[in-house]
Amino acid sequence: MEALIARRDAPNKIAYLDRHPDPVPAPGEVLIRVHLAGICATDLEIARGYMDFAGIPGHEFVGTVTAGSDRLKGQRVVGEINCICGTCDMCSRGLRGHCRQRTVLGIQGRDGAFAEWVTLPEQNCHVVPSGISDEQAVFVEPLAAAVEVTRLHPIDRWMDVTVLGSGRLGLLVAQVLKLAGCRLEVVGRNPQTLAFCERHGIQPVELDGLVPRATRDLVVDCTGTPEGLELAMKLCRPRGAIVLKSTYAAPSQVDLSPIVVNEIRVIGNRCGPFPEALKLLQEQAVDVAEMVSRTYPLRRGVEAFAAADSPRNIKVLLRPGAA
Amino acid sequence: MEALIARRDAPNKIAYLDRHPDPVPAPGEVLIRVHLAGICATDLEIARGYMDFAGIPGHEFVGTVTAGSDRLKGQRVVGEINCICGTCDMCSRGLRGHCRQRTVLGIQGRDGAFAEWVTLPEQNCHVVPSGISDEQAVFVEPLAAAVEVTRLHPIDRWMDVTVLGSGRLGLLVAQVLKLAGCRLEVVGRNPQTLAFCERHGIQPVELDGLVPRATRDLVVDCTGTPEGLELAMKLCRPRGAIVLKSTYAAPSQVDLSPIVVNEIRVIGNRCGPFPEALKLLQEQAVDVAEMVSRTYPLRRGVEAFAAADSPRNIKVLLRPGAA
Repeated sequence: MEALIARRDAPNKIAYLDRHPDPVPAPGEVLIRVHLAGICATDLEIARGYMDFAGIPGHEFVGTVTAGSDRLKGQRVVGEINCICGTCDMCSRGLRGHCRQRTVLGIQGRDGAFAEWVTLPEQNCHVVPSGISDEQAVFVEPLAAAVEVTRLHPIDRWMDVTVLGSGRLGLLVAQVLKLAGCRLEVVGRNPQTLAFCERHGIQPVELDGLVPRATRDLVVDCTGTPEGLELAMKLCRPRGAIVLKSTYAAPSQVDLSPIVVNEIRVIGNRCGPFPEALKLLQEQAVDVAEMVSRTYPLRRGVEAFAAADSPRNIKVLLRPGAA
Repeated sequence: MEALIARRDAPNKIAYLDRHPDPVPAPGEVLIRVHLAGICATDLEIARGYMDFAGIPGHEFVGTVTAGSDRLKGQRVVGEINCICGTCDMCSRGLRGHCRQRTVLGIQGRDGAFAEWVTLPEQNCHVVPSGISDEQAVFVEPLAAAVEVTRLHPIDRWMDVTVLGSGRLGLLVAQVLKLAGCRLEVVGRNPQTLAFCERHGIQPVELDGLVPRATRDLVVDCTGTPEGLELAMKLCRPRGAIVLKSTYAAPSQVDLSPIVVNEIRVIGNRCGPFPEALKLLQEQAVDVAEMVSRTYPLRRGVEAFAAADSPRNIKVLLRPGAA
């Protein structure tokens, strides 16, 4: 099959292979033909060496199950990315996303979805209702991560909430927070994505014009940069909260004393609930279609990675098997 | 009066002055004759330049009110360190410790207690019951900060809790957590303070022998060093919590990605409730007397600061007016 490959010995290099071995589903796994896959910030970080990952990246996808499960065969699915043992202390606690023996689709110890075929445990798959298009369904994984923000911290109408970063994740988080209801703003530097916010009734704020004052009840850092946390600490009011969504490869020089002095809660978050994200898409409650800037055939994946790294594009998708 | 002075232009220098002007209480303030004052890690950081503080340091004290309040005159008191405006948005929310216009005793914009006399707003003072000695009362401020840990995170019997750092604050936090009831250990490198833990029925763990595993439900960082947070992230289980009590002068190079990947909550904390701390002392529920290593006359304050920075001593106290 065709696939993109991240190589340990060649950092900053994602390569396209037109003849990579097809994956073989293990017991309990299904084989999925990938329709569409999305490139996210974590993929770009992986291309820079994050997680020291070698293999096929890609963890946002929608596809059709072709083998491995009578129940799912022929069904269109999206897939949770953490593949678990089911028996360790974290699995026993119900913290499946934190299984001690886990592999993570396209991120850790398991080939991902930037390929024609991908395998996943049957239990990881969620059937996509017919009202949701492939272009929408490919957003379920990041949208789930956005939904989780509202489960980690109560959102009230009177709350001042700032989303830092108007990138892919920032726009999803902002749309979810708008539904939850609060006094919301998105801080970014990309005129295109700030305009997206404005069109969707969300207050856009130019980063350059922002005068930081520690008044926000909640700040969600979706910048993907160490500077994000630094700014979040300046915006968050004493005894307020910061939800940290950004992962990045390099350790950073940060003065963390505001966390102690202002008694701030910093809540790290990575994954969220797929069923809620599917519901939001089915209800057309969030607009993901307009976030798709370009769709590339997988064979132009290297080009697609560069495009995903450009501020000109919001979401870049990959379509395996396309001409 | 005699006093210790921290000077902006002479970092690492605390000086003793035998003739410093007496403080004059402002309206609403009381004048207090200081009996005893304690040196804590924040004072040592201030001596290294933290907060850019210039003036008389010292915020842990017990003394007698001599003027400024008929209600308190002649009473023995301890004092809350945040002096507030009462009208800003933080004061209105009840977040008095975070008043936008606050001064902080011996830390920010207000002379502290390493002196014969100190002034504080009357409302900051708490009368010390007669069953509590001066040597105990001087611990109310840090003990209150220790108590706050149990208000920031629920403590249950089944929880595995680690206190990092067996210094002054670590020993107070550990004693409070022991009362709350949980599976508790204190990690440190000082044989003397680890022995203190053992004598008080708290499991001591040598830092050098510790093999970090991410299994703790709660980690309280009382190390006062950037390495504390780094170790805390290694010990905290996924979806667990870290209470961060450490302030230090220098920004640090930290890889914060475990917070996101393991979805950890980091809760910063600085101050706590005085009434609860006074109750614990009155009930003799925590042992602070044994933590006092040395008491110096104020005129030997420079020597006392060096002693407080030595692992040979736990708590070092200062007594103004002593021979």
